[in-house]
Amino acid sequence: MPYQLYYWPGLQGRGEFIRLALEAAGAAYTDVARGNTTAGQGMPALLHCLQDAAAVRPSFACPVLVDGKRVIGQTSAILMYLGPRLKLVGTSEVDSIWTHQIQLTIADAVSEVHGTHHPVGTSLYYEDQKLEAATAAKAFRTQRIPKFLDWLETVLERNPKGDEHLVGARLSYADLSLFQLVEGLQYAFPKATRRATKKTPRVMALRDRVAQHQRVAAYLQSERRIPFNETGIFRHYPELDA
Amino acid sequence: MPYQLYYWPGLQGRGEFIRLALEAAGAAYTDVARGNTTAGQGMPALLHCLQDAAAVRPSFACPVLVDGKRVIGQTSAILMYLGPRLKLVGTSEVDSIWTHQIQLTIADAVSEVHGTHHPVGTSLYYEDQKLEAATAAKAFRTQRIPKFLDWLETVLERNPKGDEHLVGARLSYADLSLFQLVEGLQYAFPKATRRATKKTPRVMALRDRVAQHQRVAAYLQSERRIPFNETGIFRHYPELDA
Repeated sequence: MPYQLYYWPGLQGRGEFIRLALEAAGAAYTDVARGNTTAGQGMPALLHCLQDAAAVRPSFACPVLVDGKRVIGQTSAILMYLGPRLKLVGTSEVDSIWTHQIQLTIADAVSEVHGTHHPVGTSLYYEDQKLEAATAAKAFRTQRIPKFLDWLETVLERNPKGDEHLVGARLSYADLSLFQLVEGLQYAFPKATRRATKKTPRVMALRDRVAQHQRVAAYLQSERRIPFNETGIFRHYPELDA
Repeated sequence: MPYQLYYWPGLQGRGEFIRLALEAAGAAYTDVARGNTTAGQGMPALLHCLQDAAAVRPSFACPVLVDGKRVIGQTSAILMYLGPRLKLVGTSEVDSIWTHQIQLTIADAVSEVHGTHHPVGTSLYYEDQKLEAATAAKAFRTQRIPKFLDWLETVLERNPKGDEHLVGARLSYADLSLFQLVEGLQYAFPKATRRATKKTPRVMALRDRVAQHQRVAAYLQSERRIPFNETGIFRHYPELDA
């Protein structure tokens, strides 16, 4: 039975980290909210998933992954669940935890990206907090982008199995998440990211390697890959870049 | 050999979620940065841990837990590692993932708390972003505190094993993190939290149950429990509460 992914249609958002893992592994899945309402999919199905009063273990938000009877929320928890099943994580406990630690750090970076355009309220429009966003984005650009990317560069540099992957010598979900973080930063903050990535050649080489991964490359060319846009987490507001 | 916890001295911060787990389990540990410099502890040891150029798997930030040769960063990853060892998580995969999902959601709430007093820059002082903080805190008070607490209440209400614990019928690290979240909200936003918790009796009962847990109660009375203060994540700025 295919996995079912529940996430807002029309944006990559946090759901994209799950899509990339499923796509890279060639796993069968349904992106439920993008399906047809007449097939029991679409937004009604998503809302039912989030509001189901019969759910014994309700998720706080999407993405939510359904695997048969199992229902799992929180991006990083979903990746921890999928990792061994999709062979996107090492089998030892230390490798599993280290991969997860990297994922959680990337997730922190993603949350900070969201904070650049919504610093004072997720329920307010960007247009209502543009001044605050300018201040937040400057701090993020000048301090946080280099700090996160430099850390990922160091992780690659110190990997005893070589600098081609974040953990060990094969592709993990952390590598895929690095790809998505770099793609998103390049979209949202092209100037600042260009400056920062000059110092992180290993990060950029891994980003390229993931983009050329056969199944990932096919996915990125497909209609399944939603383009970046200004309803997602990574938003390109030129006034926030420099 | 005792666990070694590396975290900033003088504040609870994210390290407190680790301390509570270790204390509730009665595990032996050293709070390294609070130790004596002459014993190789204190701030120099913490900075060495964070900056060690020989670290093969460097952490992005603290808390960091050292268990013999293993070095683990990221609060939620540390709790995932400690959970089975401290018997603070169920043994089945579904219970383990569900406990982790709850922990990650509480961690999201904690990050949002930090955002109320530092909405536009972690490197700026609160005093330099008081206006932005007032807007951010209002949104957090009125929308997010009820949303997070109501969700935790629902999780308790729907637990098939009863509403005394978040997962199953025994104490887990998620219960301890709920306690810390409620304590912190009550300290930082006493008025708003009083309103919100009127609707979450199960959350408050669990908070009380954790506070009365023999080892936790002893810890809370000890000098090892650092009082809440305005250098931590939960800060009481009266102007941000209402």
